[in-house]
Amino acid sequence: MKTITSRDNPLYKELKLLAASSQARRKAGRTLLDGVHLCQGYLQLRGAPLQCIVSEVALANPEVADIVQRCEEARAHVTALPDALYNAVSQVEHGVGLMFLVDTPAREVAGPLAVSAVLLDNLQDPGNVGSILRSAAAAGITQVYCSAGTAFCWSPKVLRAAMGAHFVLEIYENVDLADLVKNATVAVLATSGYAEQRLYDVDLRRPVAWLLGHEGQGVADDLLALATHQVVIPHLGQIESLNVAACAAVCFFEQLRQNQA
Amino acid sequence: MKTITSRDNPLYKELKLLAASSQARRKAGRTLLDGVHLCQGYLQLRGAPLQCIVSEVALANPEVADIVQRCEEARAHVTALPDALYNAVSQVEHGVGLMFLVDTPAREVAGPLAVSAVLLDNLQDPGNVGSILRSAAAAGITQVYCSAGTAFCWSPKVLRAAMGAHFVLEIYENVDLADLVKNATVAVLATSGYAEQRLYDVDLRRPVAWLLGHEGQGVADDLLALATHQVVIPHLGQIESLNVAACAAVCFFEQLRQNQA
Repeated sequence: MKTITSRDNPLYKELKLLAASSQARRKAGRTLLDGVHLCQGYLQLRGAPLQCIVSEVALANPEVADIVQRCEEARAHVTALPDALYNAVSQVEHGVGLMFLVDTPAREVAGPLAVSAVLLDNLQDPGNVGSILRSAAAAGITQVYCSAGTAFCWSPKVLRAAMGAHFVLEIYENVDLADLVKNATVAVLATSGYAEQRLYDVDLRRPVAWLLGHEGQGVADDLLALATHQVVIPHLGQIESLNVAACAAVCFFEQLRQNQA
Repeated sequence: MKTITSRDNPLYKELKLLAASSQARRKAGRTLLDGVHLCQGYLQLRGAPLQCIVSEVALANPEVADIVQRCEEARAHVTALPDALYNAVSQVEHGVGLMFLVDTPAREVAGPLAVSAVLLDNLQDPGNVGSILRSAAAAGITQVYCSAGTAFCWSPKVLRAAMGAHFVLEIYENVDLADLVKNATVAVLATSGYAEQRLYDVDLRRPVAWLLGHEGQGVADDLLALATHQVVIPHLGQIESLNVAACAAVCFFEQLRQNQA
């Protein structure tokens, strides 16, 4: 374990930049995972991080000490920071004092869409994107494709909301969704409040791609026109819309229900 | 329409206090609804507000002007504020410049629980609470009961996330959920990742109460023991949990699906 005590240390400067700037994270292809839950998930599902960063006070925490030990056994770099330096890069108030520096996989779409997947068109809210990734992973969907306008999946807020789902998913960003939908060999189901076909009347016992849109405007019209189905979740009551992450969960688990029935 | 130009005006001071303090909102039994969507919903479903507050620049916005006119026709007080004064009480950056001051209904539980309902035990995140209210209203559930530890439903964040669901729901806060569950004449279904009964194997073609718990710890053990059923949403894949608002949506719409089948 090394200890950094200078704010001029190059690694420390990299951490500060990554903590502060979404653009820097995208450019570097690296991000920070904050807290025990995300770091444990990464270790278990993806292996050793580039760096395990720990505040000096956190070394006394048994859960943190265990993760540090596992990183050292995996020959990952472990770096301790005095609390003042650590707190200046942490994104979580009153966090536990542990983060991983990790590579963010940049995937290129290769070939037509042929398995169950989630397509996110211009989703803005990081909490919604994270919740959708979490629901997809829980429902056994493994591929997620995001348009250029969708919130960056490897941002701290999306990571926090997804609770480790990133590590079991293949996430593709900056994807031309129109191209993807046109070439897909599976049915593409767009959710829309204006659709006539009920979700429950579609046979979901096969791979399908779920196309979900912007929180306010829904799926863009040109994409909607390319989808093979437009489906609605039937409502009751005077409120005629659902939060997009709630809508996603209902769709993914209806597919799972039909497949398990 | 009146215009307030002094920061010492008593109404202006009340607005500032309500905008800044959750405690003040609870104590006064009043809250602020920010933006066109919430104000339109309130007008349509609940009628005239105590006050319609509008920034001077917003009067040029046709949607805002229409709401102001409808308030005046309903003999509600309309107050214009210079933009500097308005912005100091607005909770939304780059908002449209319109808010309603409204009473928040303080309901007392009267009699045993006998219809479909949602019970929230210690839910912390305002976005989750708001999303659950929205899903409940969309699924035709009308009653919501919150424990003392649950986020205050009439806070700006919950109101924003619920998108007007408040105005069609009966919301009870600071409720003794143990008492409510013990005396309920409907089945009480607690969701739990450790339950053995699958959601889909329960007959939901009858009123049921959905008991949902804290984001991290779930439903408290003593409450869980009082529920008539513990149910799990079957998962696939390595991620073994759902966001509580996603879980709620799956449950409410499974009930609706069974009732409409």
